[in-house]
Amino acid sequence: MSGSVTVAGLGPGHSALVTPEVTEALSRATDILGYIPYVARIPVRAGLTLHPSDNREELARAAHALDIAAAGGHAVIVSSGDPGVFAMASALFEALEAAPQPVAIQILPGITAMLAAAARAGAPLGHDFCAINLSDNLKPLATVERRVRLAAQADFAMAFYNPRSKSRPHQFARVLDILREECAPERLITFARAVSTPEETLTTVTLAQATPEMADMRTVVLVGNSLTRRVGPWVYTPRSAG
Amino acid sequence: MSGSVTVAGLGPGHSALVTPEVTEALSRATDILGYIPYVARIPVRAGLTLHPSDNREELARAAHALDIAAAGGHAVIVSSGDPGVFAMASALFEALEAAPQPVAIQILPGITAMLAAAARAGAPLGHDFCAINLSDNLKPLATVERRVRLAAQADFAMAFYNPRSKSRPHQFARVLDILREECAPERLITFARAVSTPEETLTTVTLAQATPEMADMRTVVLVGNSLTRRVGPWVYTPRSAG
Repeated sequence: MSGSVTVAGLGPGHSALVTPEVTEALSRATDILGYIPYVARIPVRAGLTLHPSDNREELARAAHALDIAAAGGHAVIVSSGDPGVFAMASALFEALEAAPQPVAIQILPGITAMLAAAARAGAPLGHDFCAINLSDNLKPLATVERRVRLAAQADFAMAFYNPRSKSRPHQFARVLDILREECAPERLITFARAVSTPEETLTTVTLAQATPEMADMRTVVLVGNSLTRRVGPWVYTPRSAG
Repeated sequence: MSGSVTVAGLGPGHSALVTPEVTEALSRATDILGYIPYVARIPVRAGLTLHPSDNREELARAAHALDIAAAGGHAVIVSSGDPGVFAMASALFEALEAAPQPVAIQILPGITAMLAAAARAGAPLGHDFCAINLSDNLKPLATVERRVRLAAQADFAMAFYNPRSKSRPHQFARVLDILREECAPERLITFARAVSTPEETLTTVTLAQATPEMADMRTVVLVGNSLTRRVGPWVYTPRSAG
């Protein structure tokens, strides 16, 4: 009997942000695979094998999960946030395309970092917005720069994932330069770090005040659109922006 | 003693996609406000007053919640999906800006429609993407058209919310025309309707095959980027998309 691969989103960190659907899938898994700190969030129990791996091994991890399922196991690959947003779902389908296996596959959504961060800040993504991964070393730098510029010209609010990755530590400084060319210095930028964990910090500054050092690998950066404003301690984008 | 306003995301429909954090907030509410079908999902209990209202009354609903909180109540405004994505969070801050009240405010994230839909389809938003609300009658049509065109030029995957709203039934036909000008006819488009409910349907076609009638008011439309492809029954965007 063939098994299954489930890719499950654990949300940004706090257990109160894990959906019941994901909790149920974890309880039925025979094997759980994922980046070391995400697998560390899973309680050990009889009948469950944990397979933590490094974060540069997405394709190998996905292929391993497919092999487990082909042998009859129920593999769950855990992602932080939502598995479909700069996480493991695409890697799984790449592995499936490279080596098709007749196994059941299910993707379970989760609370992605930008939406957890936006909720803490207020509603900075309350109008049309885009999400850009600054760390992806599979993507040419010129593509990132072009996307950021066009997004600014379109007056999207923006969320940047992995702004200061090890593989691309200088990328975010370049992105800030592009934003300064395209946007007014008053544009609001929120640096949201480790939202929903004990290390959570949230800082909102203007584009003029923003520096690359305000972001690290655990930060998601939210850039407002031209009408994003403050009300008390909150940052929000009005519905009529545009 | 002053009360609180919480804006809570109920997710796309199924109770297994409601976070424990939201369930807890609902259990402590004295008053629940929201669009009629969302409030209908809340079980009646002693001590809880339900305030369903029409979907054109966001600002009045937000002001009402602030008044309840100022009088000491614990108001929860329920949104479908995530409250920060084309939902009630921005309306609350607009109301707060218009008439400040010294009440506690909390925004609780939820699974937004595009991510629930993407998970069902595979991983069509697995690379940089944008979200555009086609129904917003507070936004000039020219702004929508410009954003869609720039997003296509940036090679973002895209999610369209409210593609065939009552207020703008013809907007989506115009958007498809713009996509045909900017993208190849093979571009994949997924129409995801009422995901996670008994009425769920999911249809993926090429841009050449897409017609405005494939979307209705309960549909979110996902447009792949130039490298989005099929693998078996799934649609996914590779991580290396450029």
